[in-house]
Amino acid sequence: MAEPTAPAVLENFLAAVDLGSNSFHMVVAEESGSEIRLLDRLRDGVRLAEGLRDDGSLDPEVEQRALACLARFGQRLRGIHPDRVRVIGTNTLRQASAAEGFIRAIEETLGYPVEVVAGREEARLVYLGVAHSLAVDACERRLVIDIGGGSTELIAGKGFTPNLRESLHFGCVASTRAFFPHDAITLTACEQLERRVRMAVEPMLDEFSRHGWDQVVGSSGTVKAIARILAENGQGLRITRSGMHWLREQIIRLGSVRALSQIKGLKADRAPVFPGGFVILHGLFESLCLQEMRFSEGALREGAIYDLLGRIHQEDTREMSIRSLQERFHSQTSRNARVAQWTDHFYAVAAAAWHLHDGHRQWLRWAALTYDIGLDIAHSGFHKHGEYIWRNGDIAGFSRREQGVVAALIRAQRKRLPSPAQLRDLEIGVEDIAPLQKLAVLLRLAILFHRGATPPMAPPGLTVTGTHLTLSLAASWEAGMPLLAADLEQEQEWIMPDFHLRW
Amino acid sequence: MAEPTAPAVLENFLAAVDLGSNSFHMVVAEESGSEIRLLDRLRDGVRLAEGLRDDGSLDPEVEQRALACLARFGQRLRGIHPDRVRVIGTNTLRQASAAEGFIRAIEETLGYPVEVVAGREEARLVYLGVAHSLAVDACERRLVIDIGGGSTELIAGKGFTPNLRESLHFGCVASTRAFFPHDAITLTACEQLERRVRMAVEPMLDEFSRHGWDQVVGSSGTVKAIARILAENGQGLRITRSGMHWLREQIIRLGSVRALSQIKGLKADRAPVFPGGFVILHGLFESLCLQEMRFSEGALREGAIYDLLGRIHQEDTREMSIRSLQERFHSQTSRNARVAQWTDHFYAVAAAAWHLHDGHRQWLRWAALTYDIGLDIAHSGFHKHGEYIWRNGDIAGFSRREQGVVAALIRAQRKRLPSPAQLRDLEIGVEDIAPLQKLAVLLRLAILFHRGATPPMAPPGLTVTGTHLTLSLAASWEAGMPLLAADLEQEQEWIMPDFHLRW
Repeated sequence: MAEPTAPAVLENFLAAVDLGSNSFHMVVAEESGSEIRLLDRLRDGVRLAEGLRDDGSLDPEVEQRALACLARFGQRLRGIHPDRVRVIGTNTLRQASAAEGFIRAIEETLGYPVEVVAGREEARLVYLGVAHSLAVDACERRLVIDIGGGSTELIAGKGFTPNLRESLHFGCVASTRAFFPHDAITLTACEQLERRVRMAVEPMLDEFSRHGWDQVVGSSGTVKAIARILAENGQGLRITRSGMHWLREQIIRLGSVRALSQIKGLKADRAPVFPGGFVILHGLFESLCLQEMRFSEGALREGAIYDLLGRIHQEDTREMSIRSLQERFHSQTSRNARVAQWTDHFYAVAAAAWHLHDGHRQWLRWAALTYDIGLDIAHSGFHKHGEYIWRNGDIAGFSRREQGVVAALIRAQRKRLPSPAQLRDLEIGVEDIAPLQKLAVLLRLAILFHRGATPPMAPPGLTVTGTHLTLSLAASWEAGMPLLAADLEQEQEWIMPDFHLRW
Repeated sequence: MAEPTAPAVLENFLAAVDLGSNSFHMVVAEESGSEIRLLDRLRDGVRLAEGLRDDGSLDPEVEQRALACLARFGQRLRGIHPDRVRVIGTNTLRQASAAEGFIRAIEETLGYPVEVVAGREEARLVYLGVAHSLAVDACERRLVIDIGGGSTELIAGKGFTPNLRESLHFGCVASTRAFFPHDAITLTACEQLERRVRMAVEPMLDEFSRHGWDQVVGSSGTVKAIARILAENGQGLRITRSGMHWLREQIIRLGSVRALSQIKGLKADRAPVFPGGFVILHGLFESLCLQEMRFSEGALREGAIYDLLGRIHQEDTREMSIRSLQERFHSQTSRNARVAQWTDHFYAVAAAAWHLHDGHRQWLRWAALTYDIGLDIAHSGFHKHGEYIWRNGDIAGFSRREQGVVAALIRAQRKRLPSPAQLRDLEIGVEDIAPLQKLAVLLRLAILFHRGATPPMAPPGLTVTGTHLTLSLAASWEAGMPLLAADLEQEQEWIMPDFHLRW
């Protein structure tokens, strides 16, 4: 069977997959000049959130449904360069603490790694997707609302910049299940869910009001469905306050999820999660005093595409985040930059022998640039504080896996090198453990030489064979760094038995 | 038996007890006008560090020795107001993780609470003590070295301000034990310990050199003993580099701890810990390229006295630390100040019924002023991040207990109120658990009213009976805060079953 498209063409392709809690989405785009042309949008109502069990595992039947969908997506992705594809997991995969095997299965089916992102990172990508779908106006302030299957994102921004990002812990799937069980839709249940929305919004109301907005935009299936229903029922082309009141009355009058099929314009596959999603939006209209909202097709997956494009063209959001971390936590930036140069040099030497690749190189670089941020909390145990910040911090552009590995690298910079078992305890995925240990050794070595007041100008020669590292030091070094031998001996002891250092 | 001094006289007294790893010290001083007059200095060579066992407990024999000493100290303290006495534990008590019972016994024996302080806080107090013992020169830059029994403090400062503070994890007791066991003093052992010192100093060398100093001052028994030996052996009145070399030769020549008794000027009770202390100082002379050092009588206990005086006269270091925390972690200071006013109001209402006292009031205030600092790490789980910063942060002026209780209060501000068992897990001492839970309820209540955009101007009426809190809300409030009832209901649920809220 011939490949549907020749590899040469695929060079310009980009793709993003959104493993949402309600639907899976995929967008394939082509970069032509400075433009992005969307080629394909795929959607499948997998309803992953339905399969989430209390113990953090997923129902195997739902897993099968998801993988069947992804097998189809995977065919469309074949041939696109790994650096140009992002596969993003959101709320349900965040909650599914016992789904590591499932995530591996997704990666095998798709042929690309999965990034599970934090709620605020999700919000950032949604904003980016929406902002790019609208006419560009750098001065326009926007409020973007995205009602996902498992969480709801609120973002206030200006132009392409998201300024405030909040992720609320409820979405259309779970709240339909919780507030409208057994098919019944009652006024009381609507009011309860609306109260929940208002209480969640209250603490952020002040900040959002101060930011303000000229325009309110909704994305996601819920908003699309509402816009369509209102339009088909003569309630106007925008979602208005009065339209929302009208629809709320209809829903309560109908009184059951099954009866929603009578609503003109509501698709059959949206109905089972519609009441929760609708009432959340109604609650948001009330709490935020919204008058009117428009729908945008742009969403997480488009945001991921534009973010990817930034990475490819040297406007990586993650670089900005690293700079902001350095600033916020008072890093010694010029020294850290030197340490990063050294780790990069060591990486280049060791990469082939140690089967490291470019992704690993980035982890190493991020860790080198921020290895000292924990000092801002306290000197004692600063490697642990740095780990804490990376593990828990709201750091735009990074997936949870990336934050986790950088956190572990920063933790591993001092004292005894963590064993594979200890890295597992730091929640490092199985396939990341071996490379991470190696990267930690390189990071430690670079830091070791920068401990004194006058570090050498250029890194020493390094050769790597198996677990053996050999440094060739110029004789003059010993004179300039009287403690070098002692430091290296200590280091040798600390990285044993996993690695062996000679010089 | 008549009291040795009439209570009226004791009103101006201040005292500090230093529960050091080698010796216990006490200073009693009298405040007269703006002056401090030292009345008494007591010292007892308890050698607490000798009793520290691997499991974090202390040898009962050493505990008895310590308590016998403190019974004597306690007699001298009787009648001094609790706000004017500080009892400070340092390295051995930091290490003694299983010594809670012993600390309680100390408190009973002395009649005052014990504060175990972190190494950097210890360094700050040492600097303060030394700076006050020298002629005041606000422009003079000083390097202060204090070789304790269990740790060694290095502080670079100017005038009364310590700018750089480092605590090294070795002191005269443990290093004598580790490097000169079985009585033998060898050249190799000296060189090994010196290497250890140089490796510990290396990472901080750059910063200390940049700070610089006009004068080097040593405090502590080790330095005092060295100064005395050098003077009595015609090696000058200051400790010089050549004097240090001379003494090192003597010690190695003598070759054993027992033979040190031949050194003119070395007191018998200092000899057992002298080699470790001396070699640490020799290592510091080498690593820091020191030429000359003078001895100062001022030390931790004098520093504690001056710090206490600051607290009494409204120059509390802790207040400055709170402001610096707010700044570093971008607090909303004006809102936090309002929340603190409210907690103070609630405290005044509840104090009598709940047996709270002024110390508790301070905890509450510190927590209210910094309840939002965790937001700087991430929005999600910010109460946990705030707890982390307070628990691990280097926050000048606070004891570890104080940091621990404020950390727990900040943790307890959201979601379900921690039960007594959960507070125990947060390492809260037995006697602090009940008050802490009550303070948390007051803090939560104040925060609850400040959640919306327009908090009321003044706190509502509150009455407290047992575990029941009753708020009297003006009718107008409900109009201004539509979610108030819902928030209070939620709060009611969260503080159950320990407390009951009505309004």
